[in-house]
Amino acid sequence: MRILDLVVTPVAFRDPPLLNASGVHEPLVLRCVLQLVVEGGVVGLGECPGERAHVERLVAAGERIRGMSVFATGAIERAVDEALGGPGGPLRKIDRVAAFSAIEVACLDAQGRLTGLPVSDLLGGAVRDAVPYSAYLFYKWAEHPALDGGAAVGDEWGAALDPAGVVDQARRMIDRYGFRSIKLKGGVFPPDQEIAAIRALREAFPDHPLRIDPNCAWTVETSRYVADELKGVLEYLEDPTAGVEGMAAVSATATMPLATNMCVVSFEEVRPAVERDAVQVVLSDHHYWGGLRRTRELAAVCETLGLGMSMHSNSHLGISLAAMTHVAAATPNLTYACDTHYPWNAADDVVAGGPLRFVDGAVPVPRGPGLGVELDHAVLDRLHGAYIASGRERRDDTGYMRRIEPGYDPALPRW
Amino acid sequence: MRILDLVVTPVAFRDPPLLNASGVHEPLVLRCVLQLVVEGGVVGLGECPGERAHVERLVAAGERIRGMSVFATGAIERAVDEALGGPGGPLRKIDRVAAFSAIEVACLDAQGRLTGLPVSDLLGGAVRDAVPYSAYLFYKWAEHPALDGGAAVGDEWGAALDPAGVVDQARRMIDRYGFRSIKLKGGVFPPDQEIAAIRALREAFPDHPLRIDPNCAWTVETSRYVADELKGVLEYLEDPTAGVEGMAAVSATATMPLATNMCVVSFEEVRPAVERDAVQVVLSDHHYWGGLRRTRELAAVCETLGLGMSMHSNSHLGISLAAMTHVAAATPNLTYACDTHYPWNAADDVVAGGPLRFVDGAVPVPRGPGLGVELDHAVLDRLHGAYIASGRERRDDTGYMRRIEPGYDPALPRW
Repeated sequence: MRILDLVVTPVAFRDPPLLNASGVHEPLVLRCVLQLVVEGGVVGLGECPGERAHVERLVAAGERIRGMSVFATGAIERAVDEALGGPGGPLRKIDRVAAFSAIEVACLDAQGRLTGLPVSDLLGGAVRDAVPYSAYLFYKWAEHPALDGGAAVGDEWGAALDPAGVVDQARRMIDRYGFRSIKLKGGVFPPDQEIAAIRALREAFPDHPLRIDPNCAWTVETSRYVADELKGVLEYLEDPTAGVEGMAAVSATATMPLATNMCVVSFEEVRPAVERDAVQVVLSDHHYWGGLRRTRELAAVCETLGLGMSMHSNSHLGISLAAMTHVAAATPNLTYACDTHYPWNAADDVVAGGPLRFVDGAVPVPRGPGLGVELDHAVLDRLHGAYIASGRERRDDTGYMRRIEPGYDPALPRW
Repeated sequence: MRILDLVVTPVAFRDPPLLNASGVHEPLVLRCVLQLVVEGGVVGLGECPGERAHVERLVAAGERIRGMSVFATGAIERAVDEALGGPGGPLRKIDRVAAFSAIEVACLDAQGRLTGLPVSDLLGGAVRDAVPYSAYLFYKWAEHPALDGGAAVGDEWGAALDPAGVVDQARRMIDRYGFRSIKLKGGVFPPDQEIAAIRALREAFPDHPLRIDPNCAWTVETSRYVADELKGVLEYLEDPTAGVEGMAAVSATATMPLATNMCVVSFEEVRPAVERDAVQVVLSDHHYWGGLRRTRELAAVCETLGLGMSMHSNSHLGISLAAMTHVAAATPNLTYACDTHYPWNAADDVVAGGPLRFVDGAVPVPRGPGLGVELDHAVLDRLHGAYIASGRERRDDTGYMRRIEPGYDPALPRW
């Protein structure tokens, strides 16, 4: 079955003012929906980040893969790489791989629709019926501030700026979704305040595994201090500091595993990190590791090297959630609860029939062919309109923060 | 689609008196053909070694997987492992994995037949139209000796017991099949004689990559000597000596890569070997690495760790050759010509329509659904009869050699 066309639709959807080490989430997330049109009228869906440069890469790649078999993902991987200039060209490998990643998911969705199989079956079959996710907590403001003459925009979650606010957010999120693991995005307040928030979470949820991710906001010394303070409390500590050397120095004294989606983001980076024992858990993300089959391969690499494997998330909609769920279900050693931003963004989902359901903090593996989700074209049109109206080209948490706090300095490590 | 039954048929087929470091190939190879019967009458084929103990493991595993979805290979892997006692049971992990390996291929053949897809498409799609194999040369006798009152049994290849005989065998094999790489099974004669054979091959075939595999017949010192003598001549040197420590010691001075299918035969063994830089090329073999998807995962592991990847072979028929060809075709970094014993055994192939074809030393990737080969049931019956009549339970190259040379000592290293 040949590929006839790749329809690339950038979209924008609402996001609360979630704080992180780089600033604050803007009112709109940029994202991209792919529709891969195959002979016979089958359409495979994909979803990925929506920076304009990435959208343009997808359009260029889409032109190159027309006429190829939708089952030939190995050949498509090469064609996409060549379309984007290959190793000698102007683009970083990770950007070329990210373009293929999005297309690969759309290919697998189309393959599933053509064969009547769920994507998990194309990956070796689900070894679990549902995939557990973690409650992904953020420090946040109560509302997006009034700017440019507009009104402030609040949300149902309210503020979370101290341990009590974080625990309250966790309680509401767990009440609603049933999550059994908790992750706090840190790097926002001085480390002692974030340590206090983790301790408050431990007290309120004595049996939930806990994680904190300051996105490299800390020095090695601070990271060691936090690791020591939270000894016996954290399931893993995510990216406390930047780079293999820094992580290795923290790892040498930390009692909990170190996880990363920042110092190991490609296969090339695995071996150097392992040789330094810099990380013990790799956070997979099919959006930049090369798609769903490459994520399965990453799992084999992790198992071979004695690394744990968990899953990273960015702001996303239900197509990505379905893809994450299929690959996690088909990966025996992906045993940690996966990260997801979905609760923050699900209200704007492009998936027909409303947001995907969580049961006891887990997403049941869709059983329909392919990813098992359908596109709501009216919502897609609305979100595409929002993208166009926004005039934005890329994510800029720091720039947005500076409009509110002009002196904001994003330099890391901060503490 | 549920699995209804696994029909396990041990077979025996003719083999010439091929010499190796353990003795000599017996007149009959024991092998096993699998027929996985799925709802709707589809039958998936598999092939694997035929020792009685392995056959019994397959029968036990087959009972356990009845009723499972043929697409659920991840769950089937677990079920097979449990059926054979799991980690706490009496069997070595490699034996449990070997049982699953055979079943996985039959599952993928059935999946391909059910979906209309070639197995290579189920593995990500072929990135090459044909898979190159190497000419697999053996020192050999002209005939199986007369034993037990029977007559001696010759073959069309005649003897190869010196450099001229080896070159003659190579020329005939290359004339017939078009191979563009050459492997010599060594460990049979004193190293200087085998060095002379490699040099004679280099002279006769100046452009063919050359390999020699003495199956750990040499000490570290001898291995270093041979590596030094064949500097610039060998593409890689395969298993010159036993164990990670020995291979590491050879690797430290050898100028060519060391390859192995003996000191690294499972994922657990990769990291220790890499840490010692003991091997640079892993010879994959889907029959004991866990099947075709696991072979793709091994390829990712090799790529991540900077290892080359080639493919090992045992005496086999066309079902295995088809499986080897599909997975090699779908593996971008399997760039060495693969090993195959097929020319020695093809006359007895169970594949309908006669032996698979080589074109310029390569097997075109079958395009039909599944593995793309069908079973010749009359041949299967004949080979099963030969298995029963043989009364044999396992391969015993040493025992057979001792019937001819009673003082034969299989202890290694020999030189």
